[in-house]
Amino acid sequence: MTRTLPSYVQDAWWEPAEGARTTEVRDASTGEPVALVSTDGLDVAAALEHARQVGHHSLAPLTFHQRAILLKRMALALTERKGELYELSARTGATKADSWVDIDGGIGVLFAYSSRGRREMPQSTVYLDGPVEPLSKDGSFLGRHIATTLPGVAVQINAFNFPVWGSLEKLAPAFLAGMPTLIKPATPTGYVAEHMVRILAETGLLPAGSVQIVSGSARDLLDHLRLGDTVGFTGSASTADGLRGHAAVQDRGVRFTAETDSINASVLGPDAVPGTPEFDAYVRGLVAEMTSKAGQKCTAIRRAIVPSGMSDAVAEAVRERIAAKVVVGDPRAEGVTMGPLASVEQRDEVLRQVGRLTDGGAEVLVGGGGAIDVLLADGSRGDADGGAFVAPTLLRFADPEAEALHSIEAFGPVSSLVEYGSAEQAAELVGRGGGSLVTSVASHDGAFVADLTRRIAPHNGRILLLDRDDARSSTGHGSPLPMLVHGGPGRAGGGEELGGIRSVLHHMQRTAIQGSPAMLTAVTGVWHPGAPVSAAGEHPFRKSLAELRIGDQVVSAPREVTLDDIEHFARFTGDEFYAHMDEEAAAANPFFPGRVAHGYLLVSFAAGLFVEPAPGPVLANTGLEHLKFMTPVSPGDSIRVTLTAKQITPRETEEYGEVRWDAVLENQHDEVVAKYDVLTYVAKTR
Amino acid sequence: MTRTLPSYVQDAWWEPAEGARTTEVRDASTGEPVALVSTDGLDVAAALEHARQVGHHSLAPLTFHQRAILLKRMALALTERKGELYELSARTGATKADSWVDIDGGIGVLFAYSSRGRREMPQSTVYLDGPVEPLSKDGSFLGRHIATTLPGVAVQINAFNFPVWGSLEKLAPAFLAGMPTLIKPATPTGYVAEHMVRILAETGLLPAGSVQIVSGSARDLLDHLRLGDTVGFTGSASTADGLRGHAAVQDRGVRFTAETDSINASVLGPDAVPGTPEFDAYVRGLVAEMTSKAGQKCTAIRRAIVPSGMSDAVAEAVRERIAAKVVVGDPRAEGVTMGPLASVEQRDEVLRQVGRLTDGGAEVLVGGGGAIDVLLADGSRGDADGGAFVAPTLLRFADPEAEALHSIEAFGPVSSLVEYGSAEQAAELVGRGGGSLVTSVASHDGAFVADLTRRIAPHNGRILLLDRDDARSSTGHGSPLPMLVHGGPGRAGGGEELGGIRSVLHHMQRTAIQGSPAMLTAVTGVWHPGAPVSAAGEHPFRKSLAELRIGDQVVSAPREVTLDDIEHFARFTGDEFYAHMDEEAAAANPFFPGRVAHGYLLVSFAAGLFVEPAPGPVLANTGLEHLKFMTPVSPGDSIRVTLTAKQITPRETEEYGEVRWDAVLENQHDEVVAKYDVLTYVAKTR
Repeated sequence: MTRTLPSYVQDAWWEPAEGARTTEVRDASTGEPVALVSTDGLDVAAALEHARQVGHHSLAPLTFHQRAILLKRMALALTERKGELYELSARTGATKADSWVDIDGGIGVLFAYSSRGRREMPQSTVYLDGPVEPLSKDGSFLGRHIATTLPGVAVQINAFNFPVWGSLEKLAPAFLAGMPTLIKPATPTGYVAEHMVRILAETGLLPAGSVQIVSGSARDLLDHLRLGDTVGFTGSASTADGLRGHAAVQDRGVRFTAETDSINASVLGPDAVPGTPEFDAYVRGLVAEMTSKAGQKCTAIRRAIVPSGMSDAVAEAVRERIAAKVVVGDPRAEGVTMGPLASVEQRDEVLRQVGRLTDGGAEVLVGGGGAIDVLLADGSRGDADGGAFVAPTLLRFADPEAEALHSIEAFGPVSSLVEYGSAEQAAELVGRGGGSLVTSVASHDGAFVADLTRRIAPHNGRILLLDRDDARSSTGHGSPLPMLVHGGPGRAGGGEELGGIRSVLHHMQRTAIQGSPAMLTAVTGVWHPGAPVSAAGEHPFRKSLAELRIGDQVVSAPREVTLDDIEHFARFTGDEFYAHMDEEAAAANPFFPGRVAHGYLLVSFAAGLFVEPAPGPVLANTGLEHLKFMTPVSPGDSIRVTLTAKQITPRETEEYGEVRWDAVLENQHDEVVAKYDVLTYVAKTR
Repeated sequence: MTRTLPSYVQDAWWEPAEGARTTEVRDASTGEPVALVSTDGLDVAAALEHARQVGHHSLAPLTFHQRAILLKRMALALTERKGELYELSARTGATKADSWVDIDGGIGVLFAYSSRGRREMPQSTVYLDGPVEPLSKDGSFLGRHIATTLPGVAVQINAFNFPVWGSLEKLAPAFLAGMPTLIKPATPTGYVAEHMVRILAETGLLPAGSVQIVSGSARDLLDHLRLGDTVGFTGSASTADGLRGHAAVQDRGVRFTAETDSINASVLGPDAVPGTPEFDAYVRGLVAEMTSKAGQKCTAIRRAIVPSGMSDAVAEAVRERIAAKVVVGDPRAEGVTMGPLASVEQRDEVLRQVGRLTDGGAEVLVGGGGAIDVLLADGSRGDADGGAFVAPTLLRFADPEAEALHSIEAFGPVSSLVEYGSAEQAAELVGRGGGSLVTSVASHDGAFVADLTRRIAPHNGRILLLDRDDARSSTGHGSPLPMLVHGGPGRAGGGEELGGIRSVLHHMQRTAIQGSPAMLTAVTGVWHPGAPVSAAGEHPFRKSLAELRIGDQVVSAPREVTLDDIEHFARFTGDEFYAHMDEEAAAANPFFPGRVAHGYLLVSFAAGLFVEPAPGPVLANTGLEHLKFMTPVSPGDSIRVTLTAKQITPRETEEYGEVRWDAVLENQHDEVVAKYDVLTYVAKTR
């Protein structure tokens, strides 16, 4: 008997009662049943409320770094059992390479967010967005933007093509932000997502209520959402439009982001003629996007836009490469490089759209519909009964203005060639797609690339520039990366995912905080100039992280900077710039009163003034940021430095952490000479 | 005869034909007619298309800095003629102080964006968003986010309360982004906005098509919008919901942002008892928000949330302050501190909402409806015939859970008092507003403030922390500032305006660009490591901005760092940290192999290696950024520095500009020792 796929809700596995209405899911290559899915009787509202209550309660006390560590442990747990996911993934029609993108790609997102969370976010639950904004002349009133966790649940509604990656690329930023997630996978491949959640749940790592999955349909999901919840949707543009129009989004303030399949383009530069590395890279990219995941990618190339007279050469090269490299068949058969579509329904839909494209003016150059000879799992060849196979299909539009070219998508191994005249026309054709996730440009002509890229950028979420320098190292047209935004305007959904910390912030509220330095310090946990300091007792460099507090401060004695010092430093370092060495020339410079001290001399003296020579908790000076020289120092002036512990970031997995010190150099008239942040490693204990 | 207010469209003044349907606008204090407005026969679609074509064509070639300079010139032109605006503003019921917020406040936004545009944006038309993202190990494939101008028109639909500020706070970021603006002011006060545009148009400064104003209704405006256009709306939540649901936003990808009046709160801390500066600041803020602009502010305090047992004391203090400070009347009369509402329709609406509030459980403590004795323009007192006056009104809800308290807004001089028990309950009450533009908190107790602020931040766009330190310097609860975001979640519209450069980016598309260093350099105009360099010819420090090109590079000779150098530097600067001076202690440090050179010694030597001593175009080293020490340097190691011109930013109004240099220090094994950016001023010509 076919098994019924459970849901993981309220920290337990849930299955429908006997006799529930179910949907059958079938193997993409063989048509054999894989699972029955059903949400008949599942209390979605209770699951959402569980996330809001229990999930928030368990995530809120964790700092960004602690959540990041959990993401890494989740990634390691999935890595250990990824073989199980690969096995299930093959049933969806995915080849090994396709599964790698989905499974290892998804795990890679967890690793990436784990590392970014620790590198780019504070050891805190409040994120600081942008610098301090002085709001009054006397420094008693400051502004600062903070981001705090939204109080609701992050609902993800996913597409069928990447059940693992699709879940994890939305989960990672939400989790890091401190929002619990509810996953609603697409039914045809939901069993892979279910198993991924099962692996995570079995680790015991998941904070209570932080991750749930609803296997099956959940049509009334949005009815239960409210202000503070978010919806991340991946799928068709028409479904996105429907969800966006729901009262939850329209009237109740639920944040909605959509990433939808778009009519993406790839432009061949005029310089990239046959025989150039760019031409080869272009053709490789085009065939890869037609065949990987059998073209079922939101990011796949639908429109290959090539210079006038070039479409024959491109078509020929595509035909040759398909013949040489592409083996269509059951992914479990050795040597198969392109699998079936996810379901026979998908296959029929793609063939219907190919028909609409040819009705709209396309001629078929390669492939097309009809019977297709495939490699079966047992190594034999034949027309797989019940398998959802479609041949790689290249079309050509003679009329670049044809409406069908720019609006109809066959969500399978299907692309259309079209020719352009000028760069301006190429840009205009790209824009005709109405907003794309990605466009690629193959050219080694910097002027052409710069011009075209600036023209098409407003219409794209991502642009891949292919040339001889990056043809081998490029990650390809179709691959979103965790550090780059994924999503595009208009037809592409108008949303934005990934992009490093950017997508974490999409799960948080940005708030401008105005207040006195003391209150801003209290709220943010970061010392703000003007807030109370503690200069009594031991030198702060003698305090371990266990003892050090923000606001701990040392004010140095003054040190005179003599002409001898300046000349000596000049000769010692070799920096004999005239502003230090030649009174007359220095005075002629618009910024100096006469000879002045080297900036590097000042920061070196400052270090001499605040350093504690003996071994202690401060382990190393790792860097320096935002150094600004503000007032020149003339021979005979004296400087003193004030150093204040500004931000303390213990590392979760090390015996030390980072301390950022606010450094201010002032002269004998209390004018600020220079300002900077000193970065150090400090031990957790003495 | 009452004049008909023209529209400024397609760079010309347009008036309706005789017999057009018109709406009459009246003086808020006297009811006298001010103007007739009508858009009967106006071709809105043509105006929008004019912006998209002519407007973009004139703005696109200007760099951010050039647009910023124009903003400043516009601000100066308005300053010169602001008396005219003040005179018109008085007719809307605004007192001098109210008009200052609107007119000088609006002009201030132009100045602020002019200065931010030059300080925080490049001398270019492409904005770089975030750092370089390495995408391959060999450095041949990099990522970078850029922002480019949206191709459409920025439509603003404004509220009646701030006709000048409301227009300019939306215009400034759009203009800086390179988007043409179409202003649709609210009819009751549109004559002030019209005059503001008139002043600007008469300067001759406005690039063709960059600014238009439609005086009167434009109900089908959204029907003509498409992908690439934006709508910035300020007004009621219900109107916002209607606009958000329009097909232009739902299906056509028009970006929509709303800032709506919300049920804002002000929380009195438990420590802020009568007699404390915080109590006084709280009461001052509450009365200011009730009376300034006669309470017609989206940001006004509607809910005064005070500790149990405190409402009597607060009410008494409010009553006293109103009696002592508030004079209601025609703004043209000497001594008036609170004017009428914008129209008698608004007055009637506010009184209706006060009725709903009392029906919902409120008792009236101060004011309320009924006849009101006001100061007339001629200095006499009376109940101004046709004037839209309402008395300052303080209500109290005994039940903090009363639905009316948290959902009904009287958009006038009306606030409601309510008491809370715990900080948790205070936070919960703030959140009951369903999302607010701003909440203020008066307290000098850091722990209370930190706890409450972190709880309420997700529900607010801005939080003002009032205490004894900033009570005098604070800009007040109701005032959005150009450098801080304005807008809040849920009921507040879910949008975001201002916030410095953030709102400029809301008018641009963020796109991830992936490519080789050479192509990223071509697209961005900023040198990326790995891109071609030019090390031939003159030292780049000898080149003026006219001659210098990004990629110009100098590679220094190596310099050995001896133990003598280290000891000498230590004694000279006083930095005798053990890692430099004590072999055994240094080796025990987890990060050092033994004694190492000071980081400051390395950057000082580097300067000596790359500097050109004689006077030349490089005028000053102004700072240093992102300094990271990566590999320790031991005695006997040698270092060399590679300096490459990375970004060149000529100043529009100076004879010099900024050059950012990429500095890389390597040792004799080609390991990177340190990396940083050197910032310099360089003359435009020799």
